[in-house]
Amino acid sequence: MDQFVSLRNLKFLLYEVFQIEDLCQYPYFQEHGREIFDMTLETALKMGQDLLRPALKEMDQTPPAFINGEVKVHPAVRTFMKESGEGGWISALFPFDSGGQQLPQLVATAGQFIFSAANYSASVYPHLTSGAANLILSFGSEELKERYLPRMFSGEWQGTMALTEPQAGSSLSDVLTQALPTDQGFYQIRGQKIFISAGDHDGVDNIVHLMLAKIKGAPSGVKGISLFVVPKKRVEAGQLIFNDLQVAGVYHKLGYRGAPITQLSMGENNDCRGYLVGQAHQGLPYMFQMMNEARINVGLGAAGIASAAYYASLEYCRERLQGRKISAKDPTAPPVPIIEHADVKRMLLFQRAVVEGSLSLLMQCSQYVDQSKIREGEAKERCELLLDLLTPVAKTYPSEMGILSVSQGLQCLGGYGYCDEFILELLYRDARIHPIHEGTTGIQGVDLLGRKVIMKGGKAFTLITDEIQRTILKAETVPALVPYARALREALASLKDLTAHLAALAGEGKVEIFLADSTLYLELFGIITVAWQWLLQGLAIQKALSSDLSEMEKQFYQGKFYTLRFFFHYELPKVKGLLLRLKESDGLTVSMDKSLFSD
Amino acid sequence: MDQFVSLRNLKFLLYEVFQIEDLCQYPYFQEHGREIFDMTLETALKMGQDLLRPALKEMDQTPPAFINGEVKVHPAVRTFMKESGEGGWISALFPFDSGGQQLPQLVATAGQFIFSAANYSASVYPHLTSGAANLILSFGSEELKERYLPRMFSGEWQGTMALTEPQAGSSLSDVLTQALPTDQGFYQIRGQKIFISAGDHDGVDNIVHLMLAKIKGAPSGVKGISLFVVPKKRVEAGQLIFNDLQVAGVYHKLGYRGAPITQLSMGENNDCRGYLVGQAHQGLPYMFQMMNEARINVGLGAAGIASAAYYASLEYCRERLQGRKISAKDPTAPPVPIIEHADVKRMLLFQRAVVEGSLSLLMQCSQYVDQSKIREGEAKERCELLLDLLTPVAKTYPSEMGILSVSQGLQCLGGYGYCDEFILELLYRDARIHPIHEGTTGIQGVDLLGRKVIMKGGKAFTLITDEIQRTILKAETVPALVPYARALREALASLKDLTAHLAALAGEGKVEIFLADSTLYLELFGIITVAWQWLLQGLAIQKALSSDLSEMEKQFYQGKFYTLRFFFHYELPKVKGLLLRLKESDGLTVSMDKSLFSD
Repeated sequence: MDQFVSLRNLKFLLYEVFQIEDLCQYPYFQEHGREIFDMTLETALKMGQDLLRPALKEMDQTPPAFINGEVKVHPAVRTFMKESGEGGWISALFPFDSGGQQLPQLVATAGQFIFSAANYSASVYPHLTSGAANLILSFGSEELKERYLPRMFSGEWQGTMALTEPQAGSSLSDVLTQALPTDQGFYQIRGQKIFISAGDHDGVDNIVHLMLAKIKGAPSGVKGISLFVVPKKRVEAGQLIFNDLQVAGVYHKLGYRGAPITQLSMGENNDCRGYLVGQAHQGLPYMFQMMNEARINVGLGAAGIASAAYYASLEYCRERLQGRKISAKDPTAPPVPIIEHADVKRMLLFQRAVVEGSLSLLMQCSQYVDQSKIREGEAKERCELLLDLLTPVAKTYPSEMGILSVSQGLQCLGGYGYCDEFILELLYRDARIHPIHEGTTGIQGVDLLGRKVIMKGGKAFTLITDEIQRTILKAETVPALVPYARALREALASLKDLTAHLAALAGEGKVEIFLADSTLYLELFGIITVAWQWLLQGLAIQKALSSDLSEMEKQFYQGKFYTLRFFFHYELPKVKGLLLRLKESDGLTVSMDKSLFSD
Repeated sequence: MDQFVSLRNLKFLLYEVFQIEDLCQYPYFQEHGREIFDMTLETALKMGQDLLRPALKEMDQTPPAFINGEVKVHPAVRTFMKESGEGGWISALFPFDSGGQQLPQLVATAGQFIFSAANYSASVYPHLTSGAANLILSFGSEELKERYLPRMFSGEWQGTMALTEPQAGSSLSDVLTQALPTDQGFYQIRGQKIFISAGDHDGVDNIVHLMLAKIKGAPSGVKGISLFVVPKKRVEAGQLIFNDLQVAGVYHKLGYRGAPITQLSMGENNDCRGYLVGQAHQGLPYMFQMMNEARINVGLGAAGIASAAYYASLEYCRERLQGRKISAKDPTAPPVPIIEHADVKRMLLFQRAVVEGSLSLLMQCSQYVDQSKIREGEAKERCELLLDLLTPVAKTYPSEMGILSVSQGLQCLGGYGYCDEFILELLYRDARIHPIHEGTTGIQGVDLLGRKVIMKGGKAFTLITDEIQRTILKAETVPALVPYARALREALASLKDLTAHLAALAGEGKVEIFLADSTLYLELFGIITVAWQWLLQGLAIQKALSSDLSEMEKQFYQGKFYTLRFFFHYELPKVKGLLLRLKESDGLTVSMDKSLFSD
């Protein structure tokens, strides 16, 4: 069986780094315990191995087909939606009283990581459904909840997030889809949506779009956007009838081919009904709940794909015999497995550092979600602010670095990596979606620097630097970690210094220059945040190494510690160049006139 | 017509930076002049526009098919081979007396760049033929020259380079293909080759493999390798008859799909004849002539693909309306073309800096080739050493950075970049081959640091640093260039210092640690070399800007100068982190035992 994740590492993160068992002391999580968590992980792994992984290549090679106005997908999709419903995966995070499992986010994240690593395209169907259901649960009327949630939880109906329009792209203030009020409790919807993931398919019986539209006469810009439930088929007299929502086509994509990305057209016959969720004109803040979950999930998908690539390349490097060690050039000596070559180890360590560092950051975010459920007041707000701040980072670091990581995995196989006999080329194509969907990297950069870092007078920024500081202080008491704690201390001080410099620019009204390199700021922030996560893991690693361990366990922790060292020696130094550039604030890209791109 | 290259920039490099016209003073190039060069570029552009570009998507979508033991390719291949023969492209670089055009390498490079940018897969067929023909011309007997060169020059026969074998990969000392001497002037060849580009196709009438094999009883390792001509069909009594060379299959690849990469089997019926080229056991040094040309050409292909991606994304960014300037947030204002956004300009400038910097480096190498043809003695050796040293850099910088550059191009289009309506996803797949073929990046790193930098007591390294130094000194006399000259002076000093540190390790016999991070050393070397090329371009830019220019010309030079500034402000700082790591020499990847990659 092909390996695509490390269960050992997931347990290390859950139990040793993030100490999930502590959660079970609180009433909200008291029904759960380590046994349930272990079983959950093992079930996910089994579904990944038995259902998702075997369908991976086929789903890539026979992508969703648009036939007679409907989208046909691989039969594994229906099975997976059904099993995800029956197994409680779709409702995992919801409270018991709404029909959910009240599972900690940490465990749900581990499960979703396994699914993504097994087959990213397949993994999105139930997850999108959970996100859409959560919007209805949070803001919808009782009627909407009763009508939609049971079928979504069971995996019979697919949920989507329908934001993007052809003319607007990332600019949501330009949404044009119209909602015309009627006196019958619904709105008439007219418009077009593009790039809607799982926007139609035959793996479910209905599609439930959570859609942004503007009520006629609404204020312009983002303040006039409302959120609607717009089903493909609406329920009338117990029957599902067509709701005048047409699929206009599916996109042919580089990768991520197992999931249909669709173009939708609503109201061509003036009979598309939408049901308002919550208050009118509050659509964008509502949608951001789902969007933020989706962004974290993109990071998770990226880390999952990179994990699959890491294990595929590791297997190859162990088996492929080629060349001799540099110190033993006798041409008659037998060739060695390429994992013996330092440069190959470098490529493997790079992948492992990205995968396990990203995953730790995503687990950190999940911990804030869980904590926010058991805390009140100031402590709850603290978790929410930290999550808010880290969301663009947890989306982008795994997405951008995941591409480089998968690319190194492919490189390990040489020419074979470029051929479709091996899985690397598929993963390389799949991975490229992540810096694009759910807000491009450029959008995340502006979100981090232009919104999250400066919000509430920099409160979230102060909270995160305090968190990192706390880890540094602890690590400074562990001899093996001292050099790394110091390196992070220095990087953190530079980040604070840089942020003050940039905030001053914003204060002077130089907004364009303040934000010009926000993508690089995000890159810098990502490296420092992941270094923090490695140091946090380092505490657990060193704790374990100081105890009595079996040979195998020792290898696990020593291998992790090499990866930590790799991150600090090879990745953290990248902040030097970024800091140099970010402090210049010369407005080079602001001042350049577009005419100078002339040929 | 889609733009894929800038003719203006090619002329800038040829005439202003590398002053190609000076060559025409020398007897070898005296038949040529600016008029011929201009015409050559325009012919290449026309072939690119009329023949290559229109076939690009089709060649990707209907890749070479393996039918009844033969490989069928797109009909454009035959046309292009024919036109390349008739137009003198295949024989462009050869002396008049061998039937060539005696064209400067600088112009041939410009032409090949245009072909690669138009359609990379198509561009390799004639080029591989030139390389194979050059091996025969340099080392083959008169009989081989007479038999093969005319048909190869005319584009009727395809040339290949057949090195790689299943068990050996990058390790050429493990080549197993056998050559059994006979007393009839040929050898009997038996063995397998894999990953042979253009190793079979129906766009030509015959395939001429330049193949490495071991004569029975030869010494082990690379010293026992000989070079043979092994045709698919051999000439007997004026007829082409089958030479017992079977195509065992074609690879299904991520990209670069318009060119068949084949698996070959020789001598299954003991009737595959090979003809020794030059002396026995000298195969590897001979082959390195073709290999070095091929490596430069890989860099050129990478830069060409990145150029195509740059212009495709530039066009999109000019036309796509989305969002408003950060300083003007009125949601009712009309959206602006996304090229107005600083982050988009950053993505475009990054691409342009990589494309035009890489191209300049490749032109620099071409200039050394041309100079070596008109110089003698010390001066000639100087050019050859510089070319030798720069070859792994000119292969790798465009290949590795080209991937990132195309990826940024794709990113400019957001979701559309991921879909096959636009060309970016195709270019993204094509670009990924370059760090792999003709020696992986890891191999290039070892070649640079372990061979080229230290050869002849570091002579080539001293020569290149002197060259760079000369450019810095000139630039320091031009006020607008002073800050950039200083930045490069500092980086160059660090490189010298680092190289001395590493060489000392080698001197102490710590060879594994010396070479452990040679890939990073190559990355560092690439950035500094391309910074040098930008400074060299800066001299020509500032010279032009100090003269009287039309508005359009001024825009060209100002745009180039912004790109220079971009390189120095965004790319050169990356050396900081690399230097930090490279000086550590802690042997982290050397000491780590492979068992620590345990799960």
